[in-house]
Amino acid sequence: MRISFLTMFPEMFGSFLKSPVVARAIRSGAAACETVDIKEYAEGSFRKIDDSPYGGGPGCVLRCEPVIGALEAVRGPESHVVILSPWGKPYTQKDARRLSKEKHLVLLCGHYEGFDARIYPYADEVISVGDYILTGGEIPAMAVADSVIRLVPESLKEESTEDESFEHGLLEYPQYTRPVEFRGERVPEVLLSGNHEAIRQWRQEEALRITRERRPDLLGEEPEEVEYLQVEWTEDER
Amino acid sequence: MRISFLTMFPEMFGSFLKSPVVARAIRSGAAACETVDIKEYAEGSFRKIDDSPYGGGPGCVLRCEPVIGALEAVRGPESHVVILSPWGKPYTQKDARRLSKEKHLVLLCGHYEGFDARIYPYADEVISVGDYILTGGEIPAMAVADSVIRLVPESLKEESTEDESFEHGLLEYPQYTRPVEFRGERVPEVLLSGNHEAIRQWRQEEALRITRERRPDLLGEEPEEVEYLQVEWTEDER
Repeated sequence: MRISFLTMFPEMFGSFLKSPVVARAIRSGAAACETVDIKEYAEGSFRKIDDSPYGGGPGCVLRCEPVIGALEAVRGPESHVVILSPWGKPYTQKDARRLSKEKHLVLLCGHYEGFDARIYPYADEVISVGDYILTGGEIPAMAVADSVIRLVPESLKEESTEDESFEHGLLEYPQYTRPVEFRGERVPEVLLSGNHEAIRQWRQEEALRITRERRPDLLGEEPEEVEYLQVEWTEDER
Repeated sequence: MRISFLTMFPEMFGSFLKSPVVARAIRSGAAACETVDIKEYAEGSFRKIDDSPYGGGPGCVLRCEPVIGALEAVRGPESHVVILSPWGKPYTQKDARRLSKEKHLVLLCGHYEGFDARIYPYADEVISVGDYILTGGEIPAMAVADSVIRLVPESLKEESTEDESFEHGLLEYPQYTRPVEFRGERVPEVLLSGNHEAIRQWRQEEALRITRERRPDLLGEEPEEVEYLQVEWTEDER
């Protein structure tokens, strides 16, 4: 899989590309990553990539020309273009599985007041990594790339992605490692029993219990109690 | 505001700390960031920070001692400790506003099969940035830090955070900048009219229209059509 990050700040990806799983995927040939500097596609001596919004308002809006110019320079017949934006579909593990089968992912990162709205139709899809505002699309692009790269065969051992949170629609069961007792808290006895069937059953029950307790919405239960976003909220509320 | 990132991979934060808004916040004194290497708090010559899970299974689990050791080394009376984990409460802009008022945020990043479950009670809260799996908590910690730092006074101009997506419970209205026409697509005439009241009204209507079209769940409408996560899914489905 090839991943192209289109960004005004290619230097923001330096540490990410050296992170353990990504670096291993690159070394093994499972993934190839590149950053494409949108600034390089701005015309004129000023290389102006953004400008003030029509109709007034604060901030700057990314201009069509440099963004579409950069996009058309990297886009090929096998490319799948994703814009990272609060306007997007909420990203889930299901999307990560789906994107991990693409041959070439183009991840387009915005900044400031976002993209000129005429840019959106050039993407295959728009993804939002969550209902919060970041200074740009770079961290969301890293999140998408990381979630996808680790699913590409050869990146991780296959077995270790199977029991994780979300993969079966549940949060993961609690995990414990040495020592048996830490400051008075002991590992649940069943995990020390050696009884594999009892352990399997306990983990299944715990995954369900924890999901019910923390994320009933994942089970389709009590969705009205989960407030993803309130239209009005009081300050300082917790 | 002070932010401490507790991580096994402090080098992953290098580029983030040099990113434009974060670097400006650090220079202005609005934010101070540090990385704390959990490995430094592992005892013994092997500095073993993880171990295989009790009860069997793939991967490694982060051990209590080094994590709690690192935490207790940085935690003070004004610290607010956040664990980044899929077990957490879904993070929203409301949380970003709330956390931006903390004096000292400690962001604890996991890796591999996650934390020994006995670590969780040491945190003030557990946050999930989305329903997808990443190789570690570093990208989520950057997302939280970025969303929070930009709200700290002096980081951005106050006015530019007001009209954004989520701040009024709606997605943002479409933005346009020069040129008036790009490949046959024109900027909506109202934005060129100079009629401030008409522009304000158009933007309000567009924000509502786009939110209704893309994220009806934010308006409390048709929540049954928004599938954040399915318990079962078919492969290759889009």
